[in-house]
Amino acid sequence: MQGIRALVFDVFGTLVDWRGSIAREVQALLAPRGVKVDWLAFADAWRAQYQPAMEEVRTGQIPFSKLDVLHRRNLEVVLKDHGIRDLDEATKVQLNLAWHRLDAWPDVAPGLQRLRERFRLAPCSNGNISLMVDLARRNGLPWDAILGAEIARDYKPKAIVYQSAAAAFDCTPHEVLMVAAHSSDLAAAAQAGLRTAFVARPDEKGPGRGESRATVPVDVSVNGLIELADRLDAN
Amino acid sequence: MQGIRALVFDVFGTLVDWRGSIAREVQALLAPRGVKVDWLAFADAWRAQYQPAMEEVRTGQIPFSKLDVLHRRNLEVVLKDHGIRDLDEATKVQLNLAWHRLDAWPDVAPGLQRLRERFRLAPCSNGNISLMVDLARRNGLPWDAILGAEIARDYKPKAIVYQSAAAAFDCTPHEVLMVAAHSSDLAAAAQAGLRTAFVARPDEKGPGRGESRATVPVDVSVNGLIELADRLDAN
Repeated sequence: MQGIRALVFDVFGTLVDWRGSIAREVQALLAPRGVKVDWLAFADAWRAQYQPAMEEVRTGQIPFSKLDVLHRRNLEVVLKDHGIRDLDEATKVQLNLAWHRLDAWPDVAPGLQRLRERFRLAPCSNGNISLMVDLARRNGLPWDAILGAEIARDYKPKAIVYQSAAAAFDCTPHEVLMVAAHSSDLAAAAQAGLRTAFVARPDEKGPGRGESRATVPVDVSVNGLIELADRLDAN
Repeated sequence: MQGIRALVFDVFGTLVDWRGSIAREVQALLAPRGVKVDWLAFADAWRAQYQPAMEEVRTGQIPFSKLDVLHRRNLEVVLKDHGIRDLDEATKVQLNLAWHRLDAWPDVAPGLQRLRERFRLAPCSNGNISLMVDLARRNGLPWDAILGAEIARDYKPKAIVYQSAAAAFDCTPHEVLMVAAHSSDLAAAAQAGLRTAFVARPDEKGPGRGESRATVPVDVSVNGLIELADRLDAN
């Protein structure tokens, strides 16, 4: 792991618990309005729309749109599929901002605080800048900059997203370590020239429904950011 | 000043003392190599190349290039004009990175710490992301994100630079306050729809050779960021 100067991170699932947080936020907004659904299933259904929406941008069917915009479009589908009608616009806006109120896994803030002593740190997420800013403020994430999809004007796993993050930090791709809980993300990062760290989040999508080990070759594999700081000799 | 949600800042001159810092850094690198020049004049000469170089990008003569790249090109001109020859590449690289080692005016870090309690904060500078990251680490500037020219792929005073900073924060231009020590920057920001705050830095370009008052209409005028925090009721 010699020569690494910057670390960039996947966020949804890797750093924050999107599933539990979305279920909680949606319930808090809709239960008082008399809605009764399986809140975790609602979160899963919303997330299931995520890749197809981004694929329209990646393939050029639609111009680049912030993830907040795609989330809102997907929300309409999920509300309809759950038979939830007649929500006012203000409530839909608040629902969509649930993605700005996700909680980090407990190891994330203390791990990043150690890692930042040795490395430049940034998210390299498909989430937009304002979403990343709100997650950083909520969870105390000490980013040097907000990099990722909105900077690159395209979505992971396109190589340009990883490479533009490295370039923003004046690094060659090989000087940057991409940290993620998803093998597909790391495979694409490696293909783009970055080095890769797998973080196990085995319960990301529900008990036992996350990745407990990488299914592709990676440079380092850990169970959380504290262990990553240990492995990278960060104090 | 109602409805302001984010503050964006000019950096060179407004937040950091480029002139004194560049003179100090250049002297530290070149004096041990036997170079004897007026270090402040060297800093002024380097800075004098700044606008013409960016103008080539603004007018489309050359594609967008990071300010570090323009600074390096300008450095070659200034070295030649000062009769400084035969510098090795490593020294030139270090000289160019002098722009990453500028010191903030004393009010800046404490002022930003107060302002961040109420507002989202970002630089909106012509400096590139890595340069802004290094200045933030050196001076303890608590940015939410690094916005500005490298995000917009163009240079101030083009409207797109101010407007893309507002858009990244999910703000309308009118919800963003541009803070700068230069009337021309504030005039362009106002034209782009932002609100404007003038900070007096009367000694920016040498004693009495900075702007002590705005020469264009602004929303607020202050003598530093502590006063700005007072005026915006930030604790």
